[in-house]
Amino acid sequence: MGALLPDQSPFALPGTSAELEEGFALTPKFDADGLVTAVATDVDSGDVLMVAHMNAEALTKTIASGEAWYYSRSRRALWKKGETSGHTQRVVEMRIDCDQDAVWIKVEQISGACHTGRHSCFYRAVPLGKAGARLEFRDERVFDPTATYKK
Amino acid sequence: MGALLPDQSPFALPGTSAELEEGFALTPKFDADGLVTAVATDVDSGDVLMVAHMNAEALTKTIASGEAWYYSRSRRALWKKGETSGHTQRVVEMRIDCDQDAVWIKVEQISGACHTGRHSCFYRAVPLGKAGARLEFRDERVFDPTATYKK
Repeated sequence: MGALLPDQSPFALPGTSAELEEGFALTPKFDADGLVTAVATDVDSGDVLMVAHMNAEALTKTIASGEAWYYSRSRRALWKKGETSGHTQRVVEMRIDCDQDAVWIKVEQISGACHTGRHSCFYRAVPLGKAGARLEFRDERVFDPTATYKK
Repeated sequence: MGALLPDQSPFALPGTSAELEEGFALTPKFDADGLVTAVATDVDSGDVLMVAHMNAEALTKTIASGEAWYYSRSRRALWKKGETSGHTQRVVEMRIDCDQDAVWIKVEQISGACHTGRHSCFYRAVPLGKAGARLEFRDERVFDPTATYKK
């Protein structure tokens, strides 16, 4: 599949709030940059693995292939999760939220989702009730990022 | 606590990537609108309940109180979850992601998180492998939104 031009989105434009919320059509409400927020959770543990973005093409490829594709805002590029590291995400289920500007995918994560080497990007806890308290590391590395992403 | 002016964020500015990723200081990377993405999951089921945003004040209030506060982009206002509906979120744990532009809170959700009456905003599944397929409703309402939000 070639790259989609901005006017080639396969999705219909969002309708009214009632249509967005109670309808049967996937009509994503892309933001000004053409993106929806994408949250990936581990299908077994329920842990949030990462928060990223999808444009129309990433969403289309994810739905079609059952593998997670994203759009990198910093690199301005479509990106298959794991294309460099091998740490792909098989999508078990996809959900869309009420106003259709966010998707939730439950995935089987090969190795770790985080480029720092952890299973989840959310490897530090913020203590509650204590302003300015130190972050608490909760997760060990599951892979060596210097070996995985070496040039 | 009064409203925070934009220059009154209690958080230090983000440092280098290494400091953001491996440091012990919470230095949120707010976007151009002064927001981080916030994902709330149900502490028992692991289900994603909602995706929203926090500004510095919402984040500060959430950490201090252990109750979820957000910032509404559409209403341009700080917002305590459940202030109208009574459907508050008690925060059991907060996590910050590698580059500190997203927080994950595990919450005890009173009734439902979604203004449409469902427990989660993600009440519809997107079938995989079938472009243009109808969304599948998965969750029933747990409250009546017309009664909850009546004027």
